[in-house]
Amino acid sequence: MDDTRITKRLAEWTVDLSADEIPANVRAEGVRTFVNWLGCAVGGASHETVDRALEAVRMFSGPERAQVIGRVDRLDELHAALVNGISSHVLDYDDTHLKTIIHPAGPVASAILAVAEGRAISGRDFLTALIVGVEVECRIGNCVYPDHYDRGWHITGTAGVFGAAAATGRLLGLTRQQMIWAFGIAATQSSGLREMFGTMCKSFHPGRAAQNGAMAAFLAKANFDSSERAIEAPRGFANVLSTKQDYSEIINGLGTRWEAGLNTYKPYACGIVIHPAIDGCEQLRERLGSKVFAIASVELRTHPLVLELTGKRTPKTGLEGKFSVFHAAATALLRGDGSPTAFTDEAVRDPAIMALRDKVTATSDADIHEDAAQIAVTLKNGEQINLYVPHAIGSLERPLSNAAISEKFVNQSIPVIGEKAARDLLAKGWALEAATDVAQISRAGAA
Amino acid sequence: MDDTRITKRLAEWTVDLSADEIPANVRAEGVRTFVNWLGCAVGGASHETVDRALEAVRMFSGPERAQVIGRVDRLDELHAALVNGISSHVLDYDDTHLKTIIHPAGPVASAILAVAEGRAISGRDFLTALIVGVEVECRIGNCVYPDHYDRGWHITGTAGVFGAAAATGRLLGLTRQQMIWAFGIAATQSSGLREMFGTMCKSFHPGRAAQNGAMAAFLAKANFDSSERAIEAPRGFANVLSTKQDYSEIINGLGTRWEAGLNTYKPYACGIVIHPAIDGCEQLRERLGSKVFAIASVELRTHPLVLELTGKRTPKTGLEGKFSVFHAAATALLRGDGSPTAFTDEAVRDPAIMALRDKVTATSDADIHEDAAQIAVTLKNGEQINLYVPHAIGSLERPLSNAAISEKFVNQSIPVIGEKAARDLLAKGWALEAATDVAQISRAGAA
Repeated sequence: MDDTRITKRLAEWTVDLSADEIPANVRAEGVRTFVNWLGCAVGGASHETVDRALEAVRMFSGPERAQVIGRVDRLDELHAALVNGISSHVLDYDDTHLKTIIHPAGPVASAILAVAEGRAISGRDFLTALIVGVEVECRIGNCVYPDHYDRGWHITGTAGVFGAAAATGRLLGLTRQQMIWAFGIAATQSSGLREMFGTMCKSFHPGRAAQNGAMAAFLAKANFDSSERAIEAPRGFANVLSTKQDYSEIINGLGTRWEAGLNTYKPYACGIVIHPAIDGCEQLRERLGSKVFAIASVELRTHPLVLELTGKRTPKTGLEGKFSVFHAAATALLRGDGSPTAFTDEAVRDPAIMALRDKVTATSDADIHEDAAQIAVTLKNGEQINLYVPHAIGSLERPLSNAAISEKFVNQSIPVIGEKAARDLLAKGWALEAATDVAQISRAGAA
Repeated sequence: MDDTRITKRLAEWTVDLSADEIPANVRAEGVRTFVNWLGCAVGGASHETVDRALEAVRMFSGPERAQVIGRVDRLDELHAALVNGISSHVLDYDDTHLKTIIHPAGPVASAILAVAEGRAISGRDFLTALIVGVEVECRIGNCVYPDHYDRGWHITGTAGVFGAAAATGRLLGLTRQQMIWAFGIAATQSSGLREMFGTMCKSFHPGRAAQNGAMAAFLAKANFDSSERAIEAPRGFANVLSTKQDYSEIINGLGTRWEAGLNTYKPYACGIVIHPAIDGCEQLRERLGSKVFAIASVELRTHPLVLELTGKRTPKTGLEGKFSVFHAAATALLRGDGSPTAFTDEAVRDPAIMALRDKVTATSDADIHEDAAQIAVTLKNGEQINLYVPHAIGSLERPLSNAAISEKFVNQSIPVIGEKAARDLLAKGWALEAATDVAQISRAGAA
């Protein structure tokens, strides 16, 4: 293939695509992406990370034209994009493009919901921009994954900035030439280190990608120029930030193969690697009923990554709980919970959970797929119950239903904005395509 | 050495250093760094790049607390830092730390002059922060240069963000712990591709480094946390963005070996590689007097990089003129000019310059040092005048005098803010250490 015009071809596709060309199933997935993101943005909005970010940036905000979702605050569009991006990712509860482990909505939806306020953007145009943005970031991710991620880049930030630029550029009506520049200005801001995992900077990455990508589009709109080969040039994004460059992933099948149709939504508020164990333990809880209080032992057989990443035996804080398959399994069995409330300081210090946690053992088995788990529960009377999870809930094989996305939405939103506002916002989210002005949704997200 | 606490040790030094510990010669170099930067910020302020950046970002500015140097505009501190960083670099006329080719002042001075307004910062404290910021960015640059630069990173942006964070952190009175976080938040925003050279994004890099580094300090002040090993961790800045990591360059001799004392200032508004040829041609102009109109040919012998980077025979625009050693030599001979006015559209289209340009030839000679040039002028009467430049003016061996820095300052400032304001600002710049509040300098930089 012609590797010399990747940026140009992607930019032209981004500008030229009309809403009609997006298949119905991809549009439907786009709505699910939006609703899931909106719930996560509300759910994370009261987190301390968001408090501190707001404390620092509030004094630099321009006129308050855009809503900070799940808060009373309003900020200028770029600062709202930053904060909403942080909120939507801070609970590790958002969405995943499994081929690249990009969390696609954070950088893109955070940018364009903020930018849309005051611009009378219809739900249909907004959805098209969202899908295009997700498509752009996932394709750029595919081009460089896994080498880029293995080197230490947090791909949600580094690829996300392109998605935010593309989607914002659509809303601003950039010309083809301006979209090329927007991609260039995005490329030269691409950043975010995996070293930051476990700190507040992890969720800063999608927030900053949203803000920087949106800013790239505004600069391009003012004809601020850049390299026109920012992705593929010898000193461009792909060569400087990765050892792998497969440009066919960016160009081939544009408009026919849809990465935006492959998004998945986390049923549990933790790293995806322990989702099969939580899923299995929740299923066992249903079967066991009151026998859950008579458990003598729980044996997990899991993919080796599970113990490598989440082998913490005695978590002391809610955050540490996200890195303990033992805590997660015990909480799923006792409370049927893998949502944010399963990973609080209170939960990890609950004597009942701690007692059951100590009865959980885990064995690594390279024959078990990352998406699977084998669980054996032995009761005090010697009875044994086995369960095999071939694919965790939330995977492409067992996608979250719309009802499950709704339940996740209200469960995390109600504690932040109350039941009435949560249910109203949820309804508005599902009705995205019919909205005459998405600012109505954004404003309904106020606390 | 102990490679596990680099970030911590650098951060602690940054916080703990007192002004008294900086030697007088380093403080004097700091003042020269500031005056040179201030003149460049004024000189570049009317450039189209700055117009477009302002057009895009003005609507996002918070309260107008900080001056955009060389303009009527005022913006919030972070946006002023961005725009001043762009202005100070856009003419390729600023300063150079020759060991890393970092342009040190752009990211650092742009950040702290904006942040200082309204905070009653004395000239002495400001100068200390400036020197500390330059020291931090140049040491981090030394750690990864040249591999990091060769890979394609614009080191003024990638290292500059640390300098801006360090200097701003000093002004904000960060604790040691907060400074560690500020370095982490800076590291995870480190970006800027060399692919952007020749476009508006080149000067965007020091501007954005100033803005992002300052923002990192404000976030850290609000206890927004990050990795505490952002520079040296396996997935930290040095390992992810470079194949070379020499941490001794960061730690050894802190407070005794001063990189901030090694700054140099460009006498000519173009890439440093053609400075020896311009210098030689200006000297020849002095010797030739009116014979300059009787030149038959000019033969340059230069380091091979000169033709590789600046071999453009027939530049069409002022910007292209910066990449033509032929144009630069002719303009130096005819006008004695290597300042921004030598690289305008008017200059490259001047028939007299074009005619002389065509009489200039250049030969690459690997035995000629980058800093040197051999020039032979032959007159129409057959007379030949030879000149050898062993070290170009502006190098460490032949530093610009304070008088030359002043002349450079007023020459580029007068067209932008007028003579009275330019001379007043220059005087205030040299008197930096005596200033009770540097906001007086910042405000005097208004157009």
